[in-house]
Amino acid sequence: MHVDKLAVIGVGLIGASCALAFRGAGAVSQVIGVGRSQTNLDRACARGAIDRGVMLDDDWTHEVADADLVLIAIPVAQYRHVLAALADTLHEGAVITDAGSTKQDVVLAARETLKKRLPQFVPGHPIAGSERSGAEAGDPSLYVGRQVILTPLPETSPSAIALVADFWTACGARVARLDPARHDRILAAVSHLPHLLASALVAEIASRSDSAEYLGNAGSGFRDFTRIAAGSPEMWRDIALANRDALLSEIATYRTAIEALSLSIEHGDAAALETMLTRAAQTRREWAETAGGIATSGGS
Amino acid sequence: MHVDKLAVIGVGLIGASCALAFRGAGAVSQVIGVGRSQTNLDRACARGAIDRGVMLDDDWTHEVADADLVLIAIPVAQYRHVLAALADTLHEGAVITDAGSTKQDVVLAARETLKKRLPQFVPGHPIAGSERSGAEAGDPSLYVGRQVILTPLPETSPSAIALVADFWTACGARVARLDPARHDRILAAVSHLPHLLASALVAEIASRSDSAEYLGNAGSGFRDFTRIAAGSPEMWRDIALANRDALLSEIATYRTAIEALSLSIEHGDAAALETMLTRAAQTRREWAETAGGIATSGGS
Repeated sequence: MHVDKLAVIGVGLIGASCALAFRGAGAVSQVIGVGRSQTNLDRACARGAIDRGVMLDDDWTHEVADADLVLIAIPVAQYRHVLAALADTLHEGAVITDAGSTKQDVVLAARETLKKRLPQFVPGHPIAGSERSGAEAGDPSLYVGRQVILTPLPETSPSAIALVADFWTACGARVARLDPARHDRILAAVSHLPHLLASALVAEIASRSDSAEYLGNAGSGFRDFTRIAAGSPEMWRDIALANRDALLSEIATYRTAIEALSLSIEHGDAAALETMLTRAAQTRREWAETAGGIATSGGS
Repeated sequence: MHVDKLAVIGVGLIGASCALAFRGAGAVSQVIGVGRSQTNLDRACARGAIDRGVMLDDDWTHEVADADLVLIAIPVAQYRHVLAALADTLHEGAVITDAGSTKQDVVLAARETLKKRLPQFVPGHPIAGSERSGAEAGDPSLYVGRQVILTPLPETSPSAIALVADFWTACGARVARLDPARHDRILAAVSHLPHLLASALVAEIASRSDSAEYLGNAGSGFRDFTRIAAGSPEMWRDIALANRDALLSEIATYRTAIEALSLSIEHGDAAALETMLTRAAQTRREWAETAGGIATSGGS
Protein backbone atom coordinates (compact mmCIF):
# COMPACT_ATOMS: atom_id res chain seq x y z
CA MET A 1 0.00 0.00 0.00
CA HIS A 2 1.80 3.06 -1.30
CA VAL A 3 1.11 5.93 -3.69
CA ASP A 4 3.55 8.37 -5.15
CA LYS A 5 1.75 11.67 -4.74
CA LEU A 6 -0.72 12.74 -2.06
CA ALA A 7 -2.51 16.08 -2.28
CA VAL A 8 -4.01 17.47 0.92
CA ILE A 9 -6.60 20.19 0.35
CA GLY A 10 -6.74 22.12 3.62
CA VAL A 11 -3.70 21.77 5.85
CA GLY A 12 -5.20 22.49 9.26
CA LEU A 13 -5.08 20.19 12.27
CA ILE A 14 -6.80 17.33 10.42
CA GLY A 15 -5.10 17.68 7.05
CA ALA A 16 -1.63 18.10 8.59
CA SER A 17 -2.19 15.17 10.96
CA CYS A 18 -3.34 12.93 8.09
CA ALA A 19 -0.33 13.92 5.98
CA LEU A 20 2.05 13.26 8.87
CA ALA A 21 0.37 9.94 9.64
CA PHE A 22 0.36 8.74 5.99
CA ARG A 23 3.99 9.82 5.75
CA GLY A 24 4.93 8.13 8.98
CA ALA A 25 3.35 4.92 7.67
CA GLY A 26 5.57 5.10 4.61
CA ALA A 27 2.47 5.26 2.41
CA VAL A 28 3.35 8.30 0.28
CA SER A 29 6.46 9.64 -1.46
CA GLN A 30 5.51 13.29 -1.90
CA VAL A 31 2.82 15.49 -0.40
CA ILE A 32 1.39 18.67 -1.89
CA GLY A 33 -0.58 20.93 0.41
CA VAL A 34 -3.28 23.29 -0.82
CA GLY A 35 -4.60 26.01 1.47
CA ARG A 36 -5.95 29.48 1.97
CA SER A 37 -3.14 30.83 4.14
CA GLN A 38 0.49 31.06 3.06
CA THR A 39 1.52 31.28 6.71
CA ASN A 40 -0.20 28.01 7.51
CA LEU A 41 1.23 26.33 4.39
CA ASP A 42 4.71 27.45 5.50
CA ARG A 43 4.07 25.97 8.95
CA ALA A 44 2.94 22.70 7.36
CA CYS A 45 6.20 22.59 5.38
CA ALA A 46 8.24 23.39 8.49
CA ARG A 47 6.34 20.71 10.40
CA GLY A 48 7.23 18.18 7.67
CA ALA A 49 3.59 17.52 6.85
CA ILE A 50 3.90 18.62 3.20
CA ASP A 51 6.75 19.01 0.73
CA ARG A 52 5.29 22.01 -1.08
CA GLY A 53 2.35 24.33 -0.58
CA VAL A 54 0.13 26.03 -3.14
CA MET A 55 -2.58 28.60 -2.46
CA LEU A 56 -6.23 27.87 -3.27
CA ASP A 57 -6.27 31.28 -4.99
CA ASP A 58 -3.47 30.24 -7.37
CA ASP A 59 -3.51 27.56 -10.05
CA TRP A 60 -3.60 24.72 -7.54
CA THR A 61 -5.27 22.21 -9.88
CA HIS A 62 -2.15 22.20 -12.03
CA GLU A 63 -0.16 20.91 -9.02
CA VAL A 64 -2.77 18.34 -8.07
CA ALA A 65 -3.55 16.98 -11.57
CA ASP A 66 -1.13 14.06 -11.26
CA ALA A 67 -1.95 13.20 -7.62
CA ASP A 68 -2.72 9.55 -6.88
CA LEU A 69 -4.67 10.33 -3.72
CA VAL A 70 -6.46 13.53 -2.75
CA LEU A 71 -7.56 14.15 0.82
CA ILE A 72 -10.04 16.98 1.35
CA ALA A 73 -9.82 18.45 4.84
CA ILE A 74 -11.49 21.85 4.50
CA PRO A 75 -14.85 22.90 6.01
CA VAL A 76 -17.64 20.91 4.35
CA ALA A 77 -19.40 24.10 3.26
CA GLN A 78 -16.44 24.81 0.92
CA TYR A 79 -16.34 21.41 -0.83
CA ARG A 80 -18.31 22.17 -4.00
CA HIS A 81 -15.79 24.44 -5.66
CA VAL A 82 -12.93 22.06 -4.87
CA LEU A 83 -14.77 18.93 -5.98
CA ALA A 84 -15.82 20.56 -9.27
CA ALA A 85 -12.21 21.56 -9.96
CA LEU A 86 -10.99 18.03 -9.12
CA ALA A 87 -13.59 16.51 -11.47
CA ASP A 88 -12.08 18.47 -14.36
CA THR A 89 -8.47 17.79 -13.41
CA LEU A 90 -7.77 14.39 -11.93
CA HIS A 91 -6.75 11.34 -13.93
CA GLU A 92 -8.92 8.23 -13.89
CA GLY A 93 -6.62 6.34 -11.53
CA ALA A 94 -6.76 8.93 -8.76
CA VAL A 95 -8.69 8.33 -5.55
CA ILE A 96 -10.38 11.12 -3.59
CA THR A 97 -11.35 10.95 0.06
CA ASP A 98 -12.23 13.46 2.76
CA ALA A 99 -12.28 14.02 6.51
CA GLY A 100 -15.56 15.91 6.87
CA SER A 101 -17.61 15.53 10.06
CA THR A 102 -20.90 15.18 8.19
CA LYS A 103 -21.51 12.85 5.27
CA GLN A 104 -24.94 13.31 3.68
CA ASP A 105 -24.08 16.84 2.59
CA VAL A 106 -20.68 15.70 1.33
CA VAL A 107 -22.29 12.91 -0.71
CA LEU A 108 -24.78 15.38 -2.15
CA ALA A 109 -22.02 17.81 -3.11
CA ALA A 110 -20.02 14.96 -4.68
CA ARG A 111 -23.02 13.77 -6.71
CA GLU A 112 -23.56 17.27 -8.05
CA THR A 113 -19.95 18.00 -8.95
CA LEU A 114 -17.73 14.94 -9.46
CA LYS A 115 -19.52 13.55 -12.52
CA LYS A 116 -17.42 10.77 -14.10
CA ARG A 117 -15.00 10.89 -11.17
CA LEU A 118 -17.74 10.00 -8.66
CA PRO A 119 -16.73 6.30 -8.40
CA GLN A 120 -13.25 7.45 -7.37
CA PHE A 121 -14.55 9.27 -4.30
CA VAL A 122 -14.58 7.52 -0.90
CA PRO A 123 -16.30 9.75 1.70
CA GLY A 124 -14.63 9.34 5.08
CA HIS A 125 -14.63 10.64 8.63
CA PRO A 126 -11.69 10.02 10.95
CA ILE A 127 -13.19 10.34 14.45
CA ALA A 128 -10.44 12.23 16.17
CA GLY A 129 -9.77 15.87 16.70
CA SER A 130 -8.59 18.37 19.19
CA GLU A 131 -9.59 21.77 20.43
CA ARG A 132 -6.36 23.00 18.83
CA SER A 133 -6.19 24.04 15.18
CA GLY A 134 -3.75 24.80 12.37
CA ALA A 135 -0.88 22.87 10.79
CA GLU A 136 1.38 23.36 13.80
CA ALA A 137 -1.05 21.28 15.87
CA GLY A 138 -0.63 18.43 13.37
CA ASP A 139 0.01 15.14 15.15
CA PRO A 140 1.03 11.94 13.32
CA SER A 141 -0.41 9.80 16.14
CA LEU A 142 -3.82 11.50 16.12
CA TYR A 143 -5.47 8.48 14.50
CA VAL A 144 -3.75 5.64 16.31
CA GLY A 145 -6.44 3.38 17.75
CA ARG A 146 -9.21 5.68 16.54
CA GLN A 147 -12.24 4.89 14.44
CA VAL A 148 -12.41 6.02 10.82
CA ILE A 149 -15.84 5.72 9.21
CA LEU A 150 -16.11 5.35 5.44
CA THR A 151 -19.48 5.98 3.82
CA PRO A 152 -19.03 4.80 0.21
CA LEU A 153 -21.78 5.21 -2.39
CA PRO A 154 -23.22 2.32 -4.41
CA GLU A 155 -21.15 3.65 -7.32
CA THR A 156 -17.86 3.81 -5.42
CA SER A 157 -15.09 1.65 -6.85
CA PRO A 158 -14.19 -1.25 -4.53
CA SER A 159 -10.50 -0.70 -5.25
CA ALA A 160 -10.79 2.96 -4.20
CA ILE A 161 -12.47 1.90 -0.94
CA ALA A 162 -9.74 -0.67 -0.35
CA LEU A 163 -6.98 1.89 -0.94
CA VAL A 164 -8.43 4.42 1.50
CA ALA A 165 -9.11 1.72 4.10
CA ASP A 166 -5.52 0.49 3.76
CA PHE A 167 -4.19 4.00 4.25
CA TRP A 168 -6.09 4.46 7.48
CA THR A 169 -5.19 1.01 8.73
CA ALA A 170 -1.55 1.81 8.07
CA CYS A 171 -1.96 4.84 10.35
CA GLY A 172 -3.15 2.62 13.18
CA ALA A 173 -6.86 3.47 12.81
CA ARG A 174 -9.79 1.04 12.84
CA VAL A 175 -11.92 1.33 9.71
CA ALA A 176 -15.71 0.92 9.76
CA ARG A 177 -18.39 1.45 7.14
CA LEU A 178 -21.74 3.16 7.56
CA ASP A 179 -24.52 4.51 5.40
CA PRO A 180 -24.15 8.34 5.18
CA ALA A 181 -27.51 8.99 6.87
CA ARG A 182 -26.72 6.54 9.65
CA HIS A 183 -23.32 8.18 10.11
CA ASP A 184 -24.90 11.60 10.48
CA ARG A 185 -27.49 10.34 12.93
CA ILE A 186 -24.93 8.62 15.15
CA LEU A 187 -22.49 11.51 15.08
CA ALA A 188 -25.28 13.95 15.91
CA ALA A 189 -25.89 12.00 19.13
CA VAL A 190 -22.33 11.23 20.25
CA SER A 191 -20.40 14.21 18.88
CA HIS A 192 -22.39 17.18 17.59
CA LEU A 193 -24.94 17.31 20.41
CA PRO A 194 -22.36 17.00 23.23
CA HIS A 195 -20.34 19.76 21.60
CA LEU A 196 -23.30 22.12 21.46
CA LEU A 197 -24.39 21.23 25.00
CA ALA A 198 -20.93 22.03 26.37
CA SER A 199 -20.76 25.29 24.40
CA ALA A 200 -24.25 26.32 25.52
CA LEU A 201 -23.32 25.81 29.17
CA VAL A 202 -20.12 27.87 28.91
CA ALA A 203 -21.80 30.62 26.87
CA GLU A 204 -24.67 30.83 29.34
CA ILE A 205 -22.36 31.13 32.36
CA ALA A 206 -20.18 33.62 30.46
CA SER A 207 -23.24 35.82 29.90
CA ARG A 208 -23.68 36.38 33.66
CA SER A 209 -22.41 39.61 35.20
CA ASP A 210 -20.73 37.56 37.95
CA SER A 211 -19.38 34.84 35.64
CA ALA A 212 -15.84 35.21 37.04
CA GLU A 213 -16.93 33.87 40.42
CA TYR A 214 -18.63 30.87 38.78
CA LEU A 215 -15.63 30.09 36.60
CA GLY A 216 -13.18 30.63 39.47
CA ASN A 217 -14.83 27.83 41.43
CA ALA A 218 -15.12 25.37 38.56
CA GLY A 219 -13.12 22.17 38.90
CA SER A 220 -12.06 19.14 36.93
CA GLY A 221 -15.62 18.01 36.12
CA PHE A 222 -16.27 21.34 34.43
CA ARG A 223 -12.88 21.14 32.73
CA ASP A 224 -13.59 17.83 31.02
CA PHE A 225 -17.28 18.47 30.32
CA THR A 226 -16.44 21.75 28.56
CA ARG A 227 -13.13 20.92 26.86
CA ILE A 228 -14.80 20.59 23.45
CA ALA A 229 -16.38 24.04 23.84
CA ALA A 230 -12.96 25.54 23.05
CA GLY A 231 -13.15 24.15 19.50
CA SER A 232 -13.43 26.22 16.32
CA PRO A 233 -16.71 28.21 16.33
CA GLU A 234 -16.79 28.35 12.52
CA MET A 235 -16.32 24.62 12.12
CA TRP A 236 -19.00 23.71 14.66
CA ARG A 237 -21.42 26.30 13.32
CA ASP A 238 -21.10 24.65 9.91
CA ILE A 239 -21.47 21.15 11.33
CA ALA A 240 -24.62 22.15 13.23
CA LEU A 241 -26.18 23.60 10.10
CA ALA A 242 -25.01 20.78 7.82
CA ASN A 243 -26.45 18.10 10.10
CA ARG A 244 -29.56 20.13 10.94
CA ASP A 245 -32.27 17.47 10.79
CA ALA A 246 -30.47 14.75 12.75
CA LEU A 247 -29.28 17.29 15.29
CA LEU A 248 -32.74 18.80 15.82
CA SER A 249 -34.09 15.32 16.41
CA GLU A 250 -31.35 14.57 18.95
CA ILE A 251 -31.86 17.90 20.72
CA ALA A 252 -35.60 17.19 21.01
CA THR A 253 -34.91 13.77 22.52
CA TYR A 254 -32.41 15.25 24.92
CA ARG A 255 -34.75 18.05 25.98
CA THR A 256 -37.31 15.40 26.92
CA ALA A 257 -34.66 13.65 29.03
CA ILE A 258 -33.76 16.91 30.80
CA GLU A 259 -37.41 17.66 31.45
CA ALA A 260 -37.80 14.25 33.10
CA LEU A 261 -34.66 14.91 35.13
CA SER A 262 -35.98 18.26 36.28
CA LEU A 263 -39.28 16.68 37.36
CA SER A 264 -37.44 13.95 39.28
CA ILE A 265 -35.53 16.58 41.24
CA GLU A 266 -38.59 18.75 41.75
CA HIS A 267 -40.59 15.82 43.12
CA GLY A 268 -37.70 14.48 45.18
CA ASP A 269 -37.92 11.22 43.23
CA ALA A 270 -34.72 9.62 44.50
CA ALA A 271 -35.46 6.27 42.83
CA ALA A 272 -35.88 7.80 39.37
CA LEU A 273 -32.69 9.82 39.78
CA GLU A 274 -30.73 6.81 40.94
CA THR A 275 -32.03 4.66 38.08
CA MET A 276 -30.91 7.25 35.53
CA LEU A 277 -27.53 7.86 37.20
CA THR A 278 -26.87 4.12 37.60
CA ARG A 279 -27.64 3.41 33.95
CA ALA A 280 -25.32 6.23 32.93
CA ALA A 281 -22.49 5.18 35.26
CA GLN A 282 -22.64 1.52 34.21
CA THR A 283 -22.73 2.40 30.53
CA ARG A 284 -19.91 4.93 30.81
CA ARG A 285 -17.69 2.53 32.78
CA GLU A 286 -18.27 -0.30 30.31
CA TRP A 287 -17.58 2.05 27.42
CA ALA A 288 -14.27 3.14 28.95
CA GLU A 289 -13.22 -0.51 29.25
CA THR A 290 -14.10 -1.44 25.68
CA ALA A 291 -14.54 0.84 22.70
CA GLY A 292 -13.73 4.04 24.55
CA GLY A 293 -10.57 2.78 26.08
CA ILE A 294 -9.26 1.69 22.72
CA ALA A 295 -10.68 4.43 20.55
CA THR A 296 -9.67 7.35 22.71
CA SER A 297 -6.47 6.42 24.44
CA GLY A 298 -4.70 9.30 22.74
CA GLY A 299 -4.27 12.80 24.01
CA SER A 300 -7.11 14.63 22.37
CA MET B 1 0.37 23.87 61.95
CA HIS B 2 0.14 20.38 63.38
CA VAL B 3 -2.33 18.37 65.44
CA ASP B 4 -1.76 15.10 67.18
CA LYS B 5 -4.88 13.16 66.27
CA LEU B 6 -7.01 13.36 63.16
CA ALA B 7 -10.26 11.40 62.85
CA VAL B 8 -11.63 10.82 59.37
CA ILE B 9 -15.29 9.82 59.30
CA GLY B 10 -15.78 8.09 55.98
CA VAL B 11 -12.64 6.74 54.36
CA GLY B 12 -13.64 6.71 50.69
CA LEU B 13 -11.81 8.50 47.88
CA ILE B 14 -12.19 11.92 49.54
CA GLY B 15 -11.53 10.90 53.15
CA ALA B 16 -8.55 8.74 52.24
CA SER B 17 -7.10 11.42 49.96
CA CYS B 18 -7.45 14.06 52.70
CA ALA B 19 -5.81 11.77 55.26
CA LEU B 20 -2.95 11.01 52.88
CA ALA B 21 -2.53 14.69 52.01
CA PHE B 22 -2.59 15.89 55.65
CA ARG B 23 -0.13 13.13 56.49
CA GLY B 24 2.09 13.96 53.57
CA ALA B 25 2.16 17.60 54.73
CA GLY B 26 3.37 16.45 58.15
CA ALA B 27 0.29 17.98 59.73
CA VAL B 28 -0.90 15.01 61.82
CA SER B 29 0.72 12.37 64.02
CA GLN B 30 -2.00 9.73 64.10
CA VAL B 31 -5.11 9.13 62.01
CA ILE B 32 -8.21 7.18 63.05
CA GLY B 33 -10.57 6.12 60.29
CA VAL B 34 -14.28 5.52 60.88
CA GLY B 35 -16.35 3.74 58.26
CA ARG B 36 -19.14 1.37 57.35
CA SER B 37 -17.05 -1.28 55.64
CA GLN B 38 -14.31 -3.27 57.34
CA THR B 39 -12.89 -4.14 53.92
CA ASN B 40 -12.55 -0.49 53.02
CA LEU B 41 -11.06 0.38 56.42
CA ASP B 42 -8.50 -2.38 55.90
CA ARG B 43 -7.68 -0.96 52.49
CA ALA B 44 -7.26 2.50 54.00
CA CYS B 45 -4.80 1.03 56.55
CA ALA B 46 -2.91 -0.82 53.83
CA ARG B 47 -2.81 2.36 51.75
CA GLY B 48 -1.28 4.21 54.71
CA ALA B 49 -4.17 6.66 54.92
CA ILE B 50 -5.14 5.70 58.50
CA ASP B 51 -3.38 4.05 61.43
CA ARG B 52 -6.45 2.31 62.77
CA GLY B 53 -10.01 1.77 61.63
CA VAL B 54 -13.20 1.53 63.62
CA MET B 55 -16.66 0.64 62.36
CA LEU B 56 -19.52 3.16 62.52
CA ASP B 57 -21.57 0.31 64.04
CA ASP B 58 -19.13 -0.06 66.92
CA ASP B 59 -18.29 2.39 69.69
CA TRP B 60 -16.48 4.75 67.37
CA THR B 61 -17.06 7.86 69.48
CA HIS B 62 -14.79 6.39 72.15
CA GLU B 63 -11.93 6.36 69.64
CA VAL B 64 -12.67 9.85 68.40
CA ALA B 65 -13.26 11.58 71.75
CA ASP B 66 -9.71 12.88 72.04
CA ALA B 67 -9.28 13.85 68.38
CA ASP B 68 -7.97 17.33 67.68
CA LEU B 69 -9.42 17.51 64.20
CA VAL B 70 -12.38 15.61 62.73
CA LEU B 71 -12.96 15.47 58.99
CA ILE B 72 -16.39 14.26 57.88
CA ALA B 73 -16.31 12.73 54.40
CA ILE B 74 -19.50 10.66 54.25
CA PRO B 75 -22.59 11.39 52.12
CA VAL B 76 -24.24 14.59 53.35
CA ALA B 77 -27.53 12.79 53.93
CA GLN B 78 -25.84 10.79 56.71
CA TYR B 79 -24.35 13.74 58.64
CA ARG B 80 -26.96 14.23 61.36
CA HIS B 81 -26.28 11.07 63.33
CA VAL B 82 -22.52 11.63 63.18
CA LEU B 83 -22.70 15.32 64.12
CA ALA B 84 -25.00 14.59 67.08
CA ALA B 85 -22.58 11.96 68.38
CA LEU B 86 -19.63 14.31 67.97
CA ALA B 87 -21.49 17.06 69.88
CA ASP B 88 -21.74 14.73 72.87
CA THR B 89 -18.18 13.46 72.63
CA LEU B 90 -15.57 15.96 71.49
CA HIS B 91 -13.56 18.18 73.79
CA GLU B 92 -13.80 21.94 73.51
CA GLY B 93 -10.48 22.31 71.73
CA ALA B 94 -11.40 20.01 68.85
CA VAL B 95 -12.13 21.34 65.37
CA ILE B 96 -14.60 19.71 62.98
CA THR B 97 -14.68 20.18 59.22
CA ASP B 98 -16.20 18.35 56.29
CA ALA B 99 -15.86 17.73 52.57
CA GLY B 100 -19.50 17.74 51.50
CA SER B 101 -20.45 18.95 48.01
CA THR B 102 -23.40 21.01 49.28
CA LYS B 103 -23.25 23.44 52.18
CA GLN B 104 -26.67 24.86 53.09
CA ASP B 105 -27.95 21.44 54.14
CA VAL B 106 -24.72 20.76 56.05
CA VAL B 107 -25.03 24.07 57.91
CA LEU B 108 -28.65 23.27 58.74
CA ALA B 109 -27.73 19.83 60.05
CA ALA B 110 -24.89 21.33 62.11
CA ARG B 111 -27.18 23.96 63.63
CA GLU B 112 -29.66 21.27 64.64
CA THR B 113 -27.14 18.87 66.16
CA LEU B 114 -23.83 20.41 67.23
CA LYS B 115 -25.19 22.66 69.99
CA LYS B 116 -22.30 24.06 72.05
CA ARG B 117 -19.79 22.60 69.61
CA LEU B 118 -21.20 24.62 66.68
CA PRO B 119 -18.43 27.30 66.82
CA GLN B 120 -15.87 24.51 66.37
CA PHE B 121 -17.33 23.44 62.99
CA VAL B 122 -15.87 24.80 59.77
CA PRO B 123 -17.97 23.65 56.79
CA GLY B 124 -15.73 23.00 53.79
CA HIS B 125 -15.74 21.73 50.22
CA PRO B 126 -12.52 20.68 48.53
CA ILE B 127 -13.30 20.99 44.80
CA ALA B 128 -11.61 17.88 43.51
CA GLY B 129 -12.80 14.41 42.94
CA SER B 130 -12.61 11.54 40.58
CA GLU B 131 -14.93 9.06 38.96
CA ARG B 132 -13.12 6.45 41.06
CA SER B 133 -14.18 5.63 44.60
CA GLY B 134 -13.03 3.85 47.75
CA ALA B 135 -9.93 4.13 49.94
CA GLU B 136 -7.73 2.42 47.38
CA ALA B 137 -8.33 5.35 45.02
CA GLY B 138 -6.98 7.72 47.70
CA ASP B 139 -4.46 10.16 46.25
CA PRO B 140 -2.33 12.47 48.40
CA SER B 141 -1.95 14.92 45.50
CA LEU B 142 -5.68 15.18 44.79
CA TYR B 143 -5.86 18.69 46.23
CA VAL B 144 -2.63 20.19 44.93
CA GLY B 145 -3.51 23.41 43.14
CA ARG B 146 -7.24 22.88 43.71
CA GLN B 147 -9.76 25.21 45.28
CA VAL B 148 -11.13 24.49 48.76
CA ILE B 149 -14.17 26.55 49.71
CA LEU B 150 -14.89 27.19 53.38
CA THR B 151 -18.36 28.42 54.35
CA PRO B 152 -18.04 29.37 58.02
CA LEU B 153 -21.03 30.54 60.06
CA PRO B 154 -21.14 33.84 61.93
CA GLU B 155 -20.60 31.77 65.09
CA THR B 156 -17.58 29.88 63.82
CA SER B 157 -14.42 30.38 65.84
CA PRO B 158 -11.76 32.33 63.88
CA SER B 159 -9.04 30.05 65.22
CA ALA B 160 -10.96 26.98 63.95
CA ILE B 161 -11.24 28.59 60.51
CA ALA B 162 -7.52 29.40 60.55
CA LEU B 163 -6.60 25.83 61.49
CA VAL B 164 -8.67 24.27 58.68
CA ALA B 165 -7.39 26.83 56.17
CA ASP B 166 -3.81 26.09 57.21
CA PHE B 167 -4.37 22.36 56.78
CA TRP B 168 -5.62 22.79 53.25
CA THR B 169 -2.88 25.25 52.36
CA ALA B 170 -0.32 22.75 53.61
CA CYS B 171 -1.79 20.23 51.14
CA GLY B 172 -1.17 22.63 48.27
CA ALA B 173 -4.78 23.79 47.93
CA ARG B 174 -6.04 27.35 47.51
CA VAL B 175 -8.55 28.33 50.18
CA ALA B 176 -11.52 30.59 49.44
CA ARG B 177 -14.54 31.60 51.51
CA LEU B 178 -18.14 31.81 50.39
CA ASP B 179 -21.56 32.16 51.93
CA PRO B 180 -23.22 28.68 52.01
CA ALA B 181 -26.08 29.74 49.70
CA ARG B 182 -23.67 31.32 47.24
CA HIS B 183 -21.55 28.16 47.32
CA ASP B 184 -24.54 26.00 46.50
CA ARG B 185 -25.64 28.28 43.69
CA ILE B 186 -22.21 28.37 42.07
CA LEU B 187 -21.61 24.64 42.42
CA ALA B 188 -25.06 23.91 40.98
CA ALA B 189 -23.99 25.74 37.81
CA VAL B 190 -20.39 24.56 37.39
CA SER B 191 -20.52 21.08 38.93
CA HIS B 192 -23.93 19.57 39.70
CA LEU B 193 -25.63 20.61 36.45
CA PRO B 194 -22.77 19.43 34.18
CA HIS B 195 -22.76 16.13 36.01
CA LEU B 196 -26.47 15.59 35.48
CA LEU B 197 -26.29 16.73 31.85
CA ALA B 198 -23.53 14.23 31.11
CA SER B 199 -25.38 11.44 32.90
CA ALA B 200 -28.65 12.25 31.11
CA LEU B 201 -26.93 12.02 27.72
CA VAL B 202 -25.31 8.66 28.47
CA ALA B 203 -28.49 7.23 30.03
CA GLU B 204 -30.56 8.38 27.05
CA ILE B 205 -28.20 6.80 24.52
CA ALA B 206 -27.98 3.64 26.65
CA SER B 207 -31.76 3.32 26.52
CA ARG B 208 -31.75 2.86 22.72
CA SER B 209 -32.00 -0.62 21.30
CA ASP B 210 -29.05 0.16 19.00
CA SER B 211 -26.98 1.93 21.65
CA ALA B 212 -23.92 -0.23 20.91
CA GLU B 213 -23.53 1.30 17.47
CA TYR B 214 -23.78 4.82 18.90
CA LEU B 215 -21.24 4.10 21.63
CA GLY B 216 -18.92 2.28 19.23
CA ASN B 217 -18.55 5.41 17.15
CA ALA B 218 -18.07 7.83 20.04
CA GLY B 219 -14.71 9.55 20.23
CA SER B 220 -12.64 11.74 22.50
CA GLY B 221 -15.21 14.55 22.70
CA PHE B 222 -17.77 12.08 24.07
CA ARG B 223 -15.12 10.62 26.37
CA ASP B 224 -14.37 13.92 28.08
CA PHE B 225 -17.92 15.27 28.07
CA THR B 226 -19.18 12.10 29.77
CA ARG B 227 -16.30 11.24 32.10
CA ILE B 228 -18.15 12.53 35.16
CA ALA B 229 -21.15 10.34 34.30
CA ALA B 230 -19.16 7.36 35.64
CA GLY B 231 -19.27 8.82 39.16
CA SER B 232 -21.14 7.34 42.12
CA PRO B 233 -24.92 7.26 41.41
CA GLU B 234 -25.77 7.39 45.13
CA MET B 235 -23.57 10.40 45.80
CA TRP B 236 -24.89 12.38 42.86
CA ARG B 237 -28.50 11.44 43.60
CA ASP B 238 -28.03 12.88 47.09
CA ILE B 239 -26.31 16.01 45.79
CA ALA B 240 -29.12 16.63 43.31
CA LEU B 241 -31.74 16.33 46.02
CA ALA B 242 -29.74 18.28 48.61
CA ASN B 243 -29.18 21.20 46.25
CA ARG B 244 -32.68 20.98 44.75
CA ASP B 245 -33.66 24.65 44.53
CA ALA B 246 -30.41 25.99 43.09
CA LEU B 247 -30.22 23.07 40.68
CA LEU B 248 -33.80 23.48 39.44
CA SER B 249 -33.08 27.14 38.79
CA GLU B 250 -29.93 26.27 36.85
CA ILE B 251 -31.72 23.58 34.85
CA ALA B 252 -34.46 26.05 33.92
CA THR B 253 -31.88 28.59 32.73
CA TYR B 254 -30.06 25.92 30.76
CA ARG B 255 -33.27 24.64 29.14
CA THR B 256 -33.92 28.17 27.88
CA ALA B 257 -30.41 28.24 26.38
CA ILE B 258 -30.98 24.88 24.66
CA GLU B 259 -34.32 26.05 23.30
CA ALA B 260 -32.62 29.10 21.79
CA LEU B 261 -29.92 26.85 20.33
CA SER B 262 -32.53 24.57 18.80
CA LEU B 263 -34.31 27.54 17.21
CA SER B 264 -31.03 28.86 15.79
CA ILE B 265 -30.39 25.54 14.09
CA GLU B 266 -33.97 25.17 12.92
CA HIS B 267 -33.95 28.64 11.34
CA GLY B 268 -30.45 28.23 9.92
CA ASP B 269 -29.36 31.27 11.95
CA ALA B 270 -25.60 30.97 11.37
CA ALA B 271 -24.85 34.31 13.04
CA ALA B 272 -26.60 33.39 16.29
CA LEU B 273 -24.86 30.02 16.38
CA GLU B 274 -21.48 31.56 15.74
CA THR B 275 -22.02 34.21 18.42
CA MET B 276 -22.83 31.55 21.00
CA LEU B 277 -19.99 29.24 19.95
CA THR B 278 -17.47 32.09 19.87
CA ARG B 279 -18.44 33.31 23.34
CA ALA B 280 -18.08 29.74 24.64
CA ALA B 281 -14.74 29.11 22.92
CA GLN B 282 -13.21 32.39 24.11
CA THR B 283 -14.41 31.87 27.67
CA ARG B 284 -13.24 28.26 27.78
CA ARG B 285 -9.82 29.11 26.36
CA GLU B 286 -9.31 31.97 28.82
CA TRP B 287 -10.46 29.74 31.67
CA ALA B 288 -7.94 27.06 30.72
CA GLU B 289 -5.16 29.65 30.80
CA THR B 290 -6.08 31.08 34.20
CA ALA B 291 -8.17 29.46 36.91
CA GLY B 292 -8.74 26.23 35.05
CA GLY B 293 -5.15 25.67 34.22
CA ILE B 294 -4.15 26.06 37.83
CA ALA B 295 -7.16 24.54 39.51
CA THR B 296 -7.38 21.44 37.42
CA SER B 297 -3.91 20.51 36.38
CA GLY B 298 -4.22 17.24 38.27
CA GLY B 299 -5.41 13.93 36.98
CA SER B 300 -9.04 13.93 37.92
